[in-house]
Amino acid sequence: MSNNVIGVDMGGTKILSAVIDAEGNILGTAKVPTKADAGTSVVIDRIADAIQKAIGTSGVNEASIEAVGIGAPGPLDPETGIVIFAPNLGWRDVPLKAELEARVGIPTFVDNDVNVGTLGEHAFGAAQGVQNVVGIFVGTGIGGGIILKGELFHGASKTAGEVGHIIVKAEGPRCGCGTRGCLEAIASRTAMAKQFQKAILKKRKKSVITKLTDGDLSVIRSGVLVKAIRANDKLTLKVFKKVTKYLGIGIGSIVNFLNPDMIVLGGGVVEALDDTFIDNIRTYAEKYALPNTLDGVQIVRAKLGDNSGILGAAALARQRLETT
Amino acid sequence: MSNNVIGVDMGGTKILSAVIDAEGNILGTAKVPTKADAGTSVVIDRIADAIQKAIGTSGVNEASIEAVGIGAPGPLDPETGIVIFAPNLGWRDVPLKAELEARVGIPTFVDNDVNVGTLGEHAFGAAQGVQNVVGIFVGTGIGGGIILKGELFHGASKTAGEVGHIIVKAEGPRCGCGTRGCLEAIASRTAMAKQFQKAILKKRKKSVITKLTDGDLSVIRSGVLVKAIRANDKLTLKVFKKVTKYLGIGIGSIVNFLNPDMIVLGGGVVEALDDTFIDNIRTYAEKYALPNTLDGVQIVRAKLGDNSGILGAAALARQRLETT
Repeated sequence: MSNNVIGVDMGGTKILSAVIDAEGNILGTAKVPTKADAGTSVVIDRIADAIQKAIGTSGVNEASIEAVGIGAPGPLDPETGIVIFAPNLGWRDVPLKAELEARVGIPTFVDNDVNVGTLGEHAFGAAQGVQNVVGIFVGTGIGGGIILKGELFHGASKTAGEVGHIIVKAEGPRCGCGTRGCLEAIASRTAMAKQFQKAILKKRKKSVITKLTDGDLSVIRSGVLVKAIRANDKLTLKVFKKVTKYLGIGIGSIVNFLNPDMIVLGGGVVEALDDTFIDNIRTYAEKYALPNTLDGVQIVRAKLGDNSGILGAAALARQRLETT
Repeated sequence: MSNNVIGVDMGGTKILSAVIDAEGNILGTAKVPTKADAGTSVVIDRIADAIQKAIGTSGVNEASIEAVGIGAPGPLDPETGIVIFAPNLGWRDVPLKAELEARVGIPTFVDNDVNVGTLGEHAFGAAQGVQNVVGIFVGTGIGGGIILKGELFHGASKTAGEVGHIIVKAEGPRCGCGTRGCLEAIASRTAMAKQFQKAILKKRKKSVITKLTDGDLSVIRSGVLVKAIRANDKLTLKVFKKVTKYLGIGIGSIVNFLNPDMIVLGGGVVEALDDTFIDNIRTYAEKYALPNTLDGVQIVRAKLGDNSGILGAAALARQRLETT
């Protein structure tokens, strides 16, 4: 009998689940709203529901499911499967693994969503077969994951891979973490929104962004950025130049420090970037990395897009099942 | 018969060699001047000579020596044992391993001097038994080494651990590497000398440093720094405050990114620092690391001082002998 696993990508607004075989084929999927307001227990019920629905649409026998993997937000303990803190879910110390195992009766493994995204790219995407990989996902914030010798690296406090909080400009812009000058404070979508606000509202710069957002500059969606770039909007190009420069500096730091085999760039902002901007990131990384150190390092786009969560969770389930 | 190894610490001015047993006991040592000007071949002859002298002083039988380990400057290939570039020796593409093996007839293993220093602390010093360690050595420059899962990590271009070239302040002070804002450009002894020059020569600040250096501010030795701190020299304390702040920021970045179990601080500048300054480094690291991520991370002083090179080289020889 074929052995399948479930991959769950748990976000603040929706839960994606999928039945995935050993080759990474997606046999069936389901999507349910998270409804975090309804409380922890209801949300975990909904995950269980999403799993059953995915099994239903896949048509596989439930007995073929060997494990469940979940990518969840926030700092969490990958060993106990306890989510320590997930502000966008309102969760504190939630024993996700134990609660879900009690509901579905299948061994369940939990890891951080960006770790899982990186693992997905390693198992089925851009980083297949690569030993040492740093994943960088640029969206509302900047998250990341580190794979060393083919395995997720968690570190002493289980927090390794916080690429967004590499300090690239001491005394620079304030970061949500409480300090200044983190990469996330300059190159995330949130940081970009602040840059647009400052330019448009304070400095009275003209930009198509004003129209594309109906004047609400509090959040700039990736779709808006894509349109503004296509329109060759001067301010947007300027903001992106800064973002790509600092992503390049962050990558330069990572290359100088860890010298990984590959850096995989994903997330909504990176998906919005055309290859010119990716080239710009590489140019800045080359400027800031020590001579020749980038020669051995590939800088590539993530390949799995929205599927990186479910595929990574499936890879997590399979790896942890083997090693536990 | 006891199995011993030779550890060699090869510097720009002197070569230290030692016979070291399996427990890290130093059974005999020798020190010879490098005389880099005499040319590559002569320098390698002198290393062979230092090895013979150390064996002589130790009184052990040459047949008990199983391997030679060498910590050498500059980027090098630890597998082939070729030193790619060592400006202070005037070396380019020198096959150190092969040349020395031809002279001494003992398997020889070569690695970067700061990698070897980190390995020494891991094998016999502050980081014994610790799985994931970052060594940071602050001297003329800032070098480092990374140990992951108990083994030296080299990375894609064999350059991992260049802690001095983490970019902490984009657009900041010029660095010898050609870019700006590297940790080394703010917190190394060379950077400190520039800060003293600027304050004393341009801003006409008074400082005991002027007298202690006989007015030659081109190089500030660690011994001078120790005396100036003891004299409670205001300018020196100010410079050290900046240095410890930026070392803390660099460590904060490392903790956020890699979250290692331990950070070992060594080198002349760190040896010159009293515990107040080490506490200062920790305070800044705590400020810049994400909440709680430092809880699991030890920040400690290196223990081996000048012996970290020979002891690390001995550990290198032993590890590589086992795995080659």
